[in-house]
Amino acid sequence: MIDLYGISSPNVLKVIIMLEETGLTYDLHRIDIWAADQFTDEFKALNPNSKVPVIVDHDGLGGQPVTLFESGAILFYLAEKLQAFLPSTPQDRYATMQWLMLQMGTIGPMFGQATHFRSSAPAGQEYSLSRYTTEVHRLYDVLEARLSQADYLGGEDYTIADMATWPWAAMYHEQNGVELSRIPAVKRWIETIAARPAVVRAHQDWPSLVAYALERRASADPDKRDRLHGRGRYARGPRP
Amino acid sequence: MIDLYGISSPNVLKVIIMLEETGLTYDLHRIDIWAADQFTDEFKALNPNSKVPVIVDHDGLGGQPVTLFESGAILFYLAEKLQAFLPSTPQDRYATMQWLMLQMGTIGPMFGQATHFRSSAPAGQEYSLSRYTTEVHRLYDVLEARLSQADYLGGEDYTIADMATWPWAAMYHEQNGVELSRIPAVKRWIETIAARPAVVRAHQDWPSLVAYALERRASADPDKRDRLHGRGRYARGPRP
Repeated sequence: MIDLYGISSPNVLKVIIMLEETGLTYDLHRIDIWAADQFTDEFKALNPNSKVPVIVDHDGLGGQPVTLFESGAILFYLAEKLQAFLPSTPQDRYATMQWLMLQMGTIGPMFGQATHFRSSAPAGQEYSLSRYTTEVHRLYDVLEARLSQADYLGGEDYTIADMATWPWAAMYHEQNGVELSRIPAVKRWIETIAARPAVVRAHQDWPSLVAYALERRASADPDKRDRLHGRGRYARGPRP
Repeated sequence: MIDLYGISSPNVLKVIIMLEETGLTYDLHRIDIWAADQFTDEFKALNPNSKVPVIVDHDGLGGQPVTLFESGAILFYLAEKLQAFLPSTPQDRYATMQWLMLQMGTIGPMFGQATHFRSSAPAGQEYSLSRYTTEVHRLYDVLEARLSQADYLGGEDYTIADMATWPWAAMYHEQNGVELSRIPAVKRWIETIAARPAVVRAHQDWPSLVAYALERRASADPDKRDRLHGRGRYARGPRP
């Protein structure tokens, strides 16, 4: 049994997909990030970085419970535990890891910044919105280049690199004005993965998770929103 | 023999430190990112994402040359190849991977955005500069919480998670107004790692790399700067 702490974020969906692909049993515990649940001492004991997802695997490797944060580390851990979705042959193994790292280091953070400046920032941030939207477009082209040469990001097989990247690529093209018809390899890959039974199962509770997030976000008070975004009285460090 | 493609960036320094720690022989090839060297077909064949570092290990695992991008994947590859700096016991192994992922997914990208808005963005971006500076301060506090409980990020031993995080933590506190005296565990950890002979060796050519970068940056024409930063005629996607 695995406890998963999350909300309707692509980083959480990655882990849900992996859990469904591997058939592990899990409980999803909702964390209300707009009510500052992630800043409690209880949550910080799970993740000092105050972010979801976090898992607690009560049947961890070595017979001890394992608590883990960072979606990329969780995917890697589950792949090693179950010997699944991370190839062992050197070429595909390190290709998988480099595309997983590209998702963790660039696709997630830059797509996330574009979303922030589109949905949560005050008016007047044209430079930043353009900066991150441009980067999102460039990254879709990087994925197109790879997926024109290989069926999946790691090579011939579907791996944790695809599970990590798919939620971002599948959910953020429209709001960034990326036309999938212009990037046919990405489009084929998005559709192939969307049709996997485990990915379909991973989405069963998604509408209710999204509804919960939208409701919590709408009812958050301005001070809690500022805390989430590190602004207002929560801003620190020298000003420009 | 390993070919390393890079410039004076913390992500490249990570790899230099690992190469010095493991005693591997390498050649560092400078990539002039201000002259768009990273967008050539030759470079994109190494990394379709047009970023440094990249390595080509001519003595790769399985007897084949290995080409790898993403600093986190390079550290992981070298750790597995040499069975060094990545623990094999579950608790320390996944702790190392989660802190490596935190560096890749948050510390690097967010510190990088703070630097962009401090050094490369046009005037008037107070919201964004404050946003990322605040996040940098928060992340130093996250490191302090961890390093108050453990000697190193992964636990008792110095690992690839420390090598990945150290260049960012050691080089960016001053410009972000972070006072190390306020975070003594981070200060102790920075100083301990700085004194390692391999880390001292990794810095031998650093002043010349930094001088090269500053000179190339100063002499870049405005159009090439815009290309690097994805703005001007290189901006894509819908405007706000």
